[in-house]
Amino acid sequence: LRRLRFRVAYDGTDFHGWQQQPGLATIQGALEEIISLIEGKPVHVTGSGRTDAGVHAQGQVAAVTLTNPIPPVNFRKAVNRLLPQTIRIRDVEEAPLDFHPQFQAKRKTYQYRMFRDEVCSPFVRRFVHHYPYPLNEAAMMEAAPLFEGRHDFTAFAASDESDQEKPSKVRTIYSSVLERGVDTLVYTIVGSGFLKHMVRNMVGTLVETGRGNLSMTDVRRRLEPGCGIRPGPTAPASGLVLISVEYDSPDPNSRDPAASSDSSAP
Amino acid sequence: LRRLRFRVAYDGTDFHGWQQQPGLATIQGALEEIISLIEGKPVHVTGSGRTDAGVHAQGQVAAVTLTNPIPPVNFRKAVNRLLPQTIRIRDVEEAPLDFHPQFQAKRKTYQYRMFRDEVCSPFVRRFVHHYPYPLNEAAMMEAAPLFEGRHDFTAFAASDESDQEKPSKVRTIYSSVLERGVDTLVYTIVGSGFLKHMVRNMVGTLVETGRGNLSMTDVRRRLEPGCGIRPGPTAPASGLVLISVEYDSPDPNSRDPAASSDSSAP
Repeated sequence: LRRLRFRVAYDGTDFHGWQQQPGLATIQGALEEIISLIEGKPVHVTGSGRTDAGVHAQGQVAAVTLTNPIPPVNFRKAVNRLLPQTIRIRDVEEAPLDFHPQFQAKRKTYQYRMFRDEVCSPFVRRFVHHYPYPLNEAAMMEAAPLFEGRHDFTAFAASDESDQEKPSKVRTIYSSVLERGVDTLVYTIVGSGFLKHMVRNMVGTLVETGRGNLSMTDVRRRLEPGCGIRPGPTAPASGLVLISVEYDSPDPNSRDPAASSDSSAP
Repeated sequence: LRRLRFRVAYDGTDFHGWQQQPGLATIQGALEEIISLIEGKPVHVTGSGRTDAGVHAQGQVAAVTLTNPIPPVNFRKAVNRLLPQTIRIRDVEEAPLDFHPQFQAKRKTYQYRMFRDEVCSPFVRRFVHHYPYPLNEAAMMEAAPLFEGRHDFTAFAASDESDQEKPSKVRTIYSSVLERGVDTLVYTIVGSGFLKHMVRNMVGTLVETGRGNLSMTDVRRRLEPGCGIRPGPTAPASGLVLISVEYDSPDPNSRDPAASSDSSAP
């Protein structure tokens, strides 16, 4: 037995999210189907966390246990040859048999893109949320760093999970920045882990700030434990990309061994 | 009667090119269908030139004659609402009744992108030609400017047109440059006009240079009148984008009133 760890990029537009669901096109489902062909029997692919329907990834991390001794480079080529072009394995390496992409993840980076021009470019339309309406972008940029630090993010959980006290909704956000590109607002967030819908609810909150419906104080109040504020609005999935997932060494990218991880997807 | 001139961007992946063809999805066909709905009777949309199946545009220029007095901004909104999201009208303005986007075009800019990494990113796959094989990129960069100047481009015409002496295959190339991005080779060419398949045949010739199959002398020979060299190979359509079309003033972008234009697409 051996364990392979790999990075996956995908255009989530035409998929029902990461998680395998019978009869639906999903990223995990597609990977398991193809890798099972190579292994000659059913395999289970574990990811660093789910991504919702329509959410994209540049650097999702996943792992699979195999008996097939195929070299990692050949594994990547064989799987990519059989996968749809909207899913690509970027690189593959041998990992410890107990490597778990979800429980051992230390830090994740997400990006959310809002296309601000009146007419949305056909070249980026699959990877942005088109929002051409007036926004106080300066207020949004001021609000974005309020999320930084260790907070109870219950008010940013998926609405179907925000009522449950357990598991803990405390997470650490290392960086939360909104920047202006030529025609795009780019929100980049780095954290120890993310609740389901958390990034999309944060973006939704920033948009409400930009629309003048929420003040800095209103945003801060949502981070107070027991604030009781209902999550939302949830920004559309199309603008969200999982950029990278970091682990402790031997992964040289890992920078914060003390950070905690979790299972849910924004 | 009035004439509207507009810029169109499109993702050509799922279209059978610009030119209207019964029963096939084309850019011109889609525009004519939607604008006819607004006008209440069939209209004819004229473009600056055809683009082949799978070729994209950021700034194709087209025009249509209407009786409907709809303001240009509303025209853009109405047409964009009905078009597929892969085609977008970027802007619209009133033009002289005799404005002809093809015959009056003075200068066109095309870009061709080759994705060089082993694994093609799902985020750009629709807009590049994935070519992960070894290439002498320095030789290609050296060869690219050889196309500049006024030449007989018969050896770069579509093979079904290169035998015909008329119309003239002489064109002026103002700029022909190959540059390296992080993972992409970007070829940018500006010319007075382009023969059918011309840019794709130039890129194919550059690739042959990069593979060591053609020398600088071989490339130069293809520009000699009556060289008799058969065109090709033709690079795939997916990497090609029509960036912009320029006209004489009143278009402030126009810079070369002496240049000639033509009807064909690269």
